[in-house]
Amino acid sequence: MLTLHTWTTPNGRKVPIMLEELGLQYTIKTVNIGKGEQFTPEFLAISPNNKIPAIVDTDVDGGTVSIFESGAILTYLAEKTGKLLPAASPERYKVLEWLHWQIGGLGPMLGQVGFFAIRSEEKSELAIKHFVEEAERLLGVMDKQLANNVYIAGTHYSIADIACYPWTVGVLDKLKPVLGDKLDNKPDLRRWLDMIGARPAVQRGMALPKVD
Amino acid sequence: MLTLHTWTTPNGRKVPIMLEELGLQYTIKTVNIGKGEQFTPEFLAISPNNKIPAIVDTDVDGGTVSIFESGAILTYLAEKTGKLLPAASPERYKVLEWLHWQIGGLGPMLGQVGFFAIRSEEKSELAIKHFVEEAERLLGVMDKQLANNVYIAGTHYSIADIACYPWTVGVLDKLKPVLGDKLDNKPDLRRWLDMIGARPAVQRGMALPKVD
Repeated sequence: MLTLHTWTTPNGRKVPIMLEELGLQYTIKTVNIGKGEQFTPEFLAISPNNKIPAIVDTDVDGGTVSIFESGAILTYLAEKTGKLLPAASPERYKVLEWLHWQIGGLGPMLGQVGFFAIRSEEKSELAIKHFVEEAERLLGVMDKQLANNVYIAGTHYSIADIACYPWTVGVLDKLKPVLGDKLDNKPDLRRWLDMIGARPAVQRGMALPKVD
Repeated sequence: MLTLHTWTTPNGRKVPIMLEELGLQYTIKTVNIGKGEQFTPEFLAISPNNKIPAIVDTDVDGGTVSIFESGAILTYLAEKTGKLLPAASPERYKVLEWLHWQIGGLGPMLGQVGFFAIRSEEKSELAIKHFVEEAERLLGVMDKQLANNVYIAGTHYSIADIACYPWTVGVLDKLKPVLGDKLDNKPDLRRWLDMIGARPAVQRGMALPKVD
């Protein structure tokens, strides 16, 4: 049995998308981070960094696997099924480099734009400028990569696309009040967003977890 | 031939440590980020996100591999040699989850502490408080993990240790002016730092790249 612990955030939606793409059976347990449910002893036993998503998979050789960190979970599910991450080859490491680029760059920096420019009541012009400039730079890197490649990591859809999509799908509109028209000239990013967003599994995954 | 493009930063030192541990032959090309060498067309062709480290390996089946992002490079070198990252097993994903934790959490957040609390001339109390609290939380997670495990990902030395070491080795002392004595009660983190720092390959890697 595979249990996914998640919530309605960009990182939280990567794994439902992946599971829907793979057609695996799974159960979702919601972790309402607005209510602090990520700090319960049960959840910390799976995810000691108190972050969603996390999975527990009892259907493996060598015992139960529990994994936190969305990038590690995507890699695990790809290796478990042999899908969306090529085996040893130059293409494999193109996928891993863009996966890591999302995990270490795009995600954390857009997360900080969200905190300083949107969620924090107290405002720091220095911090807003710092993160908005970095967000614009990163989205420019992505747009340029997509000008030369159909998908983020080359010619095939992969876990790198799945990692990037929930972070970028809303961002062009959500950051408009902050970034103004600086994001309007990202035609290849927009093409990719439309293409990924048209996938039925992506649409199902983005609607999860269901919350009352 | 394996060429490493790097500089004297925490991310830049992960790969020399890994290469020294593996005993692989390699050449270093320095990329002086203080002089903007990461923006040359030659370097951007390898690393379109204009960040070090990056590697080019011509000694592979299927053509030359070029990879940016330190986490992807560590994974590549581990898989190329079959060392420091177990093959499919629960242990493999413990290593990958803590590798991703460093890439997506510890690294970016300590990097922002460095920017706002140390490098930026203009100061934002809000940003300093935000990142110092997150840094302290993350170092606490690491200390707790090391209270229950010899190495970051369990019983064996791995690429997760190599990823975390250059970020944490100086930080307890460097952040003392910012964090005060909050880091003094991290005995397991200190034990691990001493243990990793005693490895000859780590000492050699931390002294690279050599700069005039």
